[in-house]
Amino acid sequence: MSHQPKLYLDKERCKRNISRIAQKANENNLVFRPHFKTHQSIEIGRWFRDEGVEGVTVSSVEMAKYFIQDGWNDFTIAFPFYKGMIDGLKEIQNKAQIRLFVNSVEDISLLNRELKKDFKIYIEIDAGYGRSGISINKMDQIDLLVQAANDGKFSQFHGFYIHDGGTYKARGKNEIFERVEDSVDALRKLKDHYPNASTSLGDTPSASVLNNFDGIDEITPGNLVFYDWMQVQIGSCSPNDVAVYVEIPFAQQIDNEKAIVHGGAVHFSKDFIEQYSNRNYGQVFQIFDNKFKPDDGVYLSSLSQEHGTVFGFKKSIIGDHNSIKILPIHSCLTVNLFDVYHTTDGEIIQKRVLS
Amino acid sequence: MSHQPKLYLDKERCKRNISRIAQKANENNLVFRPHFKTHQSIEIGRWFRDEGVEGVTVSSVEMAKYFIQDGWNDFTIAFPFYKGMIDGLKEIQNKAQIRLFVNSVEDISLLNRELKKDFKIYIEIDAGYGRSGISINKMDQIDLLVQAANDGKFSQFHGFYIHDGGTYKARGKNEIFERVEDSVDALRKLKDHYPNASTSLGDTPSASVLNNFDGIDEITPGNLVFYDWMQVQIGSCSPNDVAVYVEIPFAQQIDNEKAIVHGGAVHFSKDFIEQYSNRNYGQVFQIFDNKFKPDDGVYLSSLSQEHGTVFGFKKSIIGDHNSIKILPIHSCLTVNLFDVYHTTDGEIIQKRVLS
Repeated sequence: MSHQPKLYLDKERCKRNISRIAQKANENNLVFRPHFKTHQSIEIGRWFRDEGVEGVTVSSVEMAKYFIQDGWNDFTIAFPFYKGMIDGLKEIQNKAQIRLFVNSVEDISLLNRELKKDFKIYIEIDAGYGRSGISINKMDQIDLLVQAANDGKFSQFHGFYIHDGGTYKARGKNEIFERVEDSVDALRKLKDHYPNASTSLGDTPSASVLNNFDGIDEITPGNLVFYDWMQVQIGSCSPNDVAVYVEIPFAQQIDNEKAIVHGGAVHFSKDFIEQYSNRNYGQVFQIFDNKFKPDDGVYLSSLSQEHGTVFGFKKSIIGDHNSIKILPIHSCLTVNLFDVYHTTDGEIIQKRVLS
Repeated sequence: MSHQPKLYLDKERCKRNISRIAQKANENNLVFRPHFKTHQSIEIGRWFRDEGVEGVTVSSVEMAKYFIQDGWNDFTIAFPFYKGMIDGLKEIQNKAQIRLFVNSVEDISLLNRELKKDFKIYIEIDAGYGRSGISINKMDQIDLLVQAANDGKFSQFHGFYIHDGGTYKARGKNEIFERVEDSVDALRKLKDHYPNASTSLGDTPSASVLNNFDGIDEITPGNLVFYDWMQVQIGSCSPNDVAVYVEIPFAQQIDNEKAIVHGGAVHFSKDFIEQYSNRNYGQVFQIFDNKFKPDDGVYLSSLSQEHGTVFGFKKSIIGDHNSIKILPIHSCLTVNLFDVYHTTDGEIIQKRVLS
């Protein structure tokens, strides 16, 4: 009987996810520089170190500072550089190497004036996804940035980085292959142009399913440490690879198909996927013999601050437990809303609280 | 220049919001029993106490425990009772009076066996919104619950509670009036049937705009302590009533209409409203002479974990500041993602961290 919503972590699955991708990177001669934004935990970070990981990727200066506490000393800050970062970067540089995403010649100059220690520059490329980075079609601009990075007193051009957010819209492996094609082509084109540059691909679906990494030197997936129900739908993994879930108290049966649970937007955030002709904010599942069995058509159909509505509710789901297990739609956002992990074998694992 | 996303609080507006509703309640002979889920701050709670508030509403046992630390001793736990609450309720009862939402005769019996101190029961009514509570059409069931509550050794029936979530879909005051009609009618019908029962209405839009509270004894709004951009669209308030905003660093200009900012789902959650023929996840605005001026058509059009995309970006918005101000779509969820409030006059106000 759960007293309040709790975040659970299956350590064995999590370590298996880390180990699998580390091995895949090794077999394909890829640098594995994982993104630590998903777990935000010093203890889980150590499981990557056990697999030989030395450099990591973070999404903010504050996140780098958190991991420096445990001796990490080589960070990619995978967010477009902005001036407000400077004081934090100086602080980090006292203890660690940094690689930055810089998008303008002016900012490269600024950084060389402000930072008095060496740093490396990735040029973030937009191969069509359209979030951040420089369009692959602007080769002139890219050439100028490479030149400026190499001309800087402290800066050195390191390579090209693409986070292909488009693969998150795929449904099935073949669609992942199709959707990542533009990104892989862009990296290969850049590699032809700059043979010594490192090329880096960021997303979890590609890292999970690609077999041919020609032209790619580095992968930086974050989500695959845990995966989630969205990644199952994308085709990145199976339900038995998902390493986190939330257990929430059952509160009230409303009618034949709906129940109210204590689990809302402050526990899951509000990411959803379109599924079951509706919005699915969290997938109900059960555990039998260590296997995760999703209950088809049973899901969180709406969330308010603390309330969740489970659609397709069946009494058999709760049995004698008075609680329901939910696979999060987006584990990065769900995990961010809890202060600790409860492992399925009864330990508590600390994490960073709030970003 | 903002170093990372920061939550700002305008104390004067916040106190004005509290004071306005306290006065309105007073003029209409209503008990004002505010919901504290939105601010989750002991210090802000004291501003309600200054207005004469004695009893409050919370959405979980843990939230009640937080406010007990500051001497609050009369709570409505506005969430359907479930068994997992019992230990927590016993703990609360050592220091405070409690009112519970109980939906079954079995649970009323259970509570009378488990809790050895007096407690009061609200029957939560569903007047058509369809989240939690007992349908107003099931008067037989309601009669049974009232009877069971009054027959219990420790329980006493207190009254009826409706949270009309339907008003959040209104656009304009007249629609709020139309949408809340079923709830007000239900409370009046119950009042005819049970003249001594207290009737309670929970939502912010109704509390903000209703002028006729005949048949209603109590209001418990939460969001109106801060309001937000959604409440502006609903018609509950003007932009100059909104008391919180988030300031986020500007990171990169993408093209003529888009910019990347450091502000994502870990700062705003992912609530949106349909606006500008798109999804608006946060409204860009500027402050002139203490007035909030929304930039029409300029808004957060997408959010990933740490990145936000501002659509309709104009250089004039940032001026020399390198940061952008955002009115949150849903202040309850946004505030929940920050550890402190920065007041606009430079203080730091503590809050509960995570629900």
